[in-house]
Amino acid sequence: MYGEIITIGNELTSGRTVDINSWYAAGRLTASGLGVIRVTSVGDDVQMVTRALKRAHTSSRFVIVTGGLGTTEDDMTCKIAAHALNRPLRLDREMLKKIQHYIDAQGIKMTPPLEKMAYMPEGARMLNPTGGTCGFSIEDKEVRFYFLPGVPEQSRYLMDTVVLPELLGLYEALPVMGQRIIKIYGMNEPHIAEKLDQLRGKIGEVVLGFYPRFPENHLTLSLKGEDNAQVTAVLDRVEQEITAILGTCVFSTDGQDMEEVVGRILVQKEMTLSVAESCTGGLIGHRLTNVPGSSQYYQGGVVSYSNRLKTALLGVNEETLKRHGAVSAKTAKEMAQGVRRQTGSHLGLATTGIAGPEGGTREKPVGTVYIGLCRGEEALSTGYRFSGDRQQIKQQSATMALDWIRRYLSGYSFLPGI
Amino acid sequence: MYGEIITIGNELTSGRTVDINSWYAAGRLTASGLGVIRVTSVGDDVQMVTRALKRAHTSSRFVIVTGGLGTTEDDMTCKIAAHALNRPLRLDREMLKKIQHYIDAQGIKMTPPLEKMAYMPEGARMLNPTGGTCGFSIEDKEVRFYFLPGVPEQSRYLMDTVVLPELLGLYEALPVMGQRIIKIYGMNEPHIAEKLDQLRGKIGEVVLGFYPRFPENHLTLSLKGEDNAQVTAVLDRVEQEITAILGTCVFSTDGQDMEEVVGRILVQKEMTLSVAESCTGGLIGHRLTNVPGSSQYYQGGVVSYSNRLKTALLGVNEETLKRHGAVSAKTAKEMAQGVRRQTGSHLGLATTGIAGPEGGTREKPVGTVYIGLCRGEEALSTGYRFSGDRQQIKQQSATMALDWIRRYLSGYSFLPGI
Repeated sequence: MYGEIITIGNELTSGRTVDINSWYAAGRLTASGLGVIRVTSVGDDVQMVTRALKRAHTSSRFVIVTGGLGTTEDDMTCKIAAHALNRPLRLDREMLKKIQHYIDAQGIKMTPPLEKMAYMPEGARMLNPTGGTCGFSIEDKEVRFYFLPGVPEQSRYLMDTVVLPELLGLYEALPVMGQRIIKIYGMNEPHIAEKLDQLRGKIGEVVLGFYPRFPENHLTLSLKGEDNAQVTAVLDRVEQEITAILGTCVFSTDGQDMEEVVGRILVQKEMTLSVAESCTGGLIGHRLTNVPGSSQYYQGGVVSYSNRLKTALLGVNEETLKRHGAVSAKTAKEMAQGVRRQTGSHLGLATTGIAGPEGGTREKPVGTVYIGLCRGEEALSTGYRFSGDRQQIKQQSATMALDWIRRYLSGYSFLPGI
Repeated sequence: MYGEIITIGNELTSGRTVDINSWYAAGRLTASGLGVIRVTSVGDDVQMVTRALKRAHTSSRFVIVTGGLGTTEDDMTCKIAAHALNRPLRLDREMLKKIQHYIDAQGIKMTPPLEKMAYMPEGARMLNPTGGTCGFSIEDKEVRFYFLPGVPEQSRYLMDTVVLPELLGLYEALPVMGQRIIKIYGMNEPHIAEKLDQLRGKIGEVVLGFYPRFPENHLTLSLKGEDNAQVTAVLDRVEQEITAILGTCVFSTDGQDMEEVVGRILVQKEMTLSVAESCTGGLIGHRLTNVPGSSQYYQGGVVSYSNRLKTALLGVNEETLKRHGAVSAKTAKEMAQGVRRQTGSHLGLATTGIAGPEGGTREKPVGTVYIGLCRGEEALSTGYRFSGDRQQIKQQSATMALDWIRRYLSGYSFLPGI
């Protein structure tokens, strides 16, 4: 059962906004076994929106439309939908009451732009009539249209609570769609492609997809079938073959992010971690604490952006800073030791480097980053040379540092540095 | 001069990947005065890709296509392009040489999937023949097609270095497209809409667009015209009227992020900042250090995720933690004072709260966050109650904390809390 998604807004065709509404809707639909054949984004333009709606009308069984339901003048989806589907626009009293109720609670008064939001094409059915978020649906010649707001939180909410349950109720006996994501860090595309070449002819109907997600690479395995157990068994087998070929660079096969993988290992080993960040500026702590329950193993740490903090809070030797510099193996090691000593955690992790665009030298160009790790008396550190812009260097440094924890606690060797 | 963008890949129609290629291309084209009328994403499906290419052929002057140029079996853009444009597929010797050169450098051997990448439709011109990133273009019945890789970094690179310069060379005398982004924090959409209602009839041809960017709201002003100075003057006037109406909730009118605005003020005032983060886990430091040159004013700080670190590294009174709890106004204040004392910075900023999903109580539910700020002997703190998931609560806490710095140093009052 196939459908499509249309997102409306000048912000999309002018590149001001990333289209996360279609991404979310497509993901939820696919995960539910409903196929998406096309995603179209058009600006707030009567002709282009009309064309997109008419085209969808002839090629899909359901159409999810987001955007253009707001208060500003360029919001005219209701009007265009009415026109494209040959229906008059009518004031919906229930909708008007709902808007009135909402603005009363906010202590503001009704204005023409707010009232405009209560006009809908004839035959439209309001979604979620009791809640705060509005949208509507229309059934026309066996095609079901859902019109949702462009605000991501609102459109997600209606997708999850109204649209998906309705669509799943309409279409039964969907084929099974199995998917795996194998996440890889530390191996580039040509190397992965060369290694996977060994698998040719051995993966049956499984479709491989390759998705660089800087600084990681993700590989997807997809398989359609009638029987869930059989699809799962085939994917299990192929997943095992691939992880055997790619080795320790595979860090996740069940969708987990690096920080989740690291968290799971720390919980298993009943160990705690603290982090001293210089060039990453707090990014490692931010990523670790995105995982619910991370307070179980992550104690916190120090962002020692200035040299003064490296000595004052982490006890890095002034002599070390003077002789080796803040960006050095020895400083990284002393930072890791310092933060572990200060917090009493089992492991101390540290980053120090030059994220750029300024601050590079011939000996230590932008992208030079040292990572330090200690456990008890044992302390290790290595330097890397990353390329890219400031954000990319921060991201690579954080991912490499987290990967050190994963590799260290799993007994794998580290990725080679400079 | 209008064109369109087609992005190809199952990862897009299945919602596995956000389509940032079309976002980037659309933004660059728009900024250059070239209009984008439509963005279409289709899966790795011969029929859907063919339809999208044929449709674009009849409605646009230029077409940017990304994706499907890789090594895996679902990468078949070359084949489909050849078919849709009625051209045979030919081995491009130059391309093959280039691939050979690249894999030689990587120390791997040629495989059929790598060789496949050297086949292109007849008449195709290789983009960037000397560099590492490949793509091609075809001119057909006055429509120019550009086929770019799906890897974002590679497609961006070719957009910037080849596609845009070529298109700008083809089309001259473009109209001026002026745009402003007004960024707002601390005022919700209905309030903004009510206030902007005062402007009706006063903004001429300027088109207003409203874009919630959680937890901020962005307002765009767009104006097309023939004369740059005139367009700028009108936008200046409207921007001033809007900022006068919305007051101190407007934090940026030139595209700067909150952390850039805060950085600029700190540089102006010649002040330094340090941060003690609990519930934000490092996010404030991460955001501050995304700004190049932030080491000039950001010293670093402490991520005191555990209570032990709040006392050990920040000197928060154990009595305070016992009597008021870690999530309290008094703890936030002492954290700010502690980090300032430890670092010697002019300002100390602190966050402590419950990001959830666990850890909430009736008195302090998930979303309860206290922010503390101190300068010299002066110390302030207030609590807020944010809603949303863990990530959203972290984001709101970080933005509110940064906004405190902006408001404090600008002499504005803080947004009201609990």
